[in-house]
Amino acid sequence: MNLLQDLNWRYATKRMTGEKIPQEKLDNIFEAIRLSASSMGFQPYNVVVVEDPEMRKQIQAVAFNQPQIVEASHLLVFAAWDPLSEEQVAAYMNQIASERGVSPDSLAGFSNSINSMIKSRTAEENFNWAAKQAYIALGTGLVAASAEKIDSTPMEGFNPPALDELLGLREKGLRSVALLALGYRDAEKDVLASAKKVRRPADKFFLKVA
Amino acid sequence: MNLLQDLNWRYATKRMTGEKIPQEKLDNIFEAIRLSASSMGFQPYNVVVVEDPEMRKQIQAVAFNQPQIVEASHLLVFAAWDPLSEEQVAAYMNQIASERGVSPDSLAGFSNSINSMIKSRTAEENFNWAAKQAYIALGTGLVAASAEKIDSTPMEGFNPPALDELLGLREKGLRSVALLALGYRDAEKDVLASAKKVRRPADKFFLKVA
Repeated sequence: MNLLQDLNWRYATKRMTGEKIPQEKLDNIFEAIRLSASSMGFQPYNVVVVEDPEMRKQIQAVAFNQPQIVEASHLLVFAAWDPLSEEQVAAYMNQIASERGVSPDSLAGFSNSINSMIKSRTAEENFNWAAKQAYIALGTGLVAASAEKIDSTPMEGFNPPALDELLGLREKGLRSVALLALGYRDAEKDVLASAKKVRRPADKFFLKVA
Repeated sequence: MNLLQDLNWRYATKRMTGEKIPQEKLDNIFEAIRLSASSMGFQPYNVVVVEDPEMRKQIQAVAFNQPQIVEASHLLVFAAWDPLSEEQVAAYMNQIASERGVSPDSLAGFSNSINSMIKSRTAEENFNWAAKQAYIALGTGLVAASAEKIDSTPMEGFNPPALDELLGLREKGLRSVALLALGYRDAEKDVLASAKKVRRPADKFFLKVA
């Protein structure tokens, strides 16, 4: 299975060369992220794409100066919706009705169930839920990048409020939850490039019930 | 890119045929999940594999009677670690030291940084963090299943405390966060099998900064 080879090839790349990713590969990775599954298909997050070197220097300063932030070809910021609203649900229903050619009325039950869920939770619970959906997309993006032999680094090591401020996310109803650097490994500078991948063995990772 | 075809092929399957997945395909999907990225490689979760029909009937009863729980070939329960502990960190360090042939002392900084992070957060924050790592693996599993042309349904619609009780998860230091049903679509019974996939268009999903 090629996917297993790809997953064994990838690692959290700490140093990158700055080389730019060809547009076709980038398009494929982005499209995989966009097609990711999410609870009820709601996709309660956006992905902010940062290419500008100056902005990336500023982001690096609020992210423990990690080199891959400026050495990556592209930096993606996964940003969860906060707050969640009936307007977002309505927009989703309108899109479903339009694309599937069904009446909005036929979606009333579905719409109500999402709205009820949102109302039953605190704002922070909704944000955590939205963040988890973004992490499914992060996982999808990591696999897609490896399938294109593009290196990637998922990152939580940054100051979210400071990054939100830099990118003006809060006024867009967004909060940053994870970064994904995409680019090419600098194997000479990155000691982890040749390190053995460490994962818990299957018998300690999977638990069997009957 | 085959992966995009695979992702377009997959959907959250609501009805399955009960057919069993061949062992080789199952092994590949499991291995992809095990190889998933996680923050600092810590993998703070387990995956519980449920095949037994009787147990699945009981799980179905605490999961809104969703048919795919009993109609799937295999049901996976993603369960996050709660609480997180220094013992888990020490076990991880021992594994790294052993597999990479480095001294445990050389990992003291890494070990301290994980322990400091854990101590700086509340138990609930640690649980949410562990759950998010499990969602990266859930995303990886969805892609891997589609690459094997195996249908899949990620599910949050269940009662976590009731499921934890059924599977005895709390005494193992685990809490269920998501289900993944793996099997084969029953296209005649599943109205969603022929429904158009709905995703926000790229210009509303990706936000460009410079």
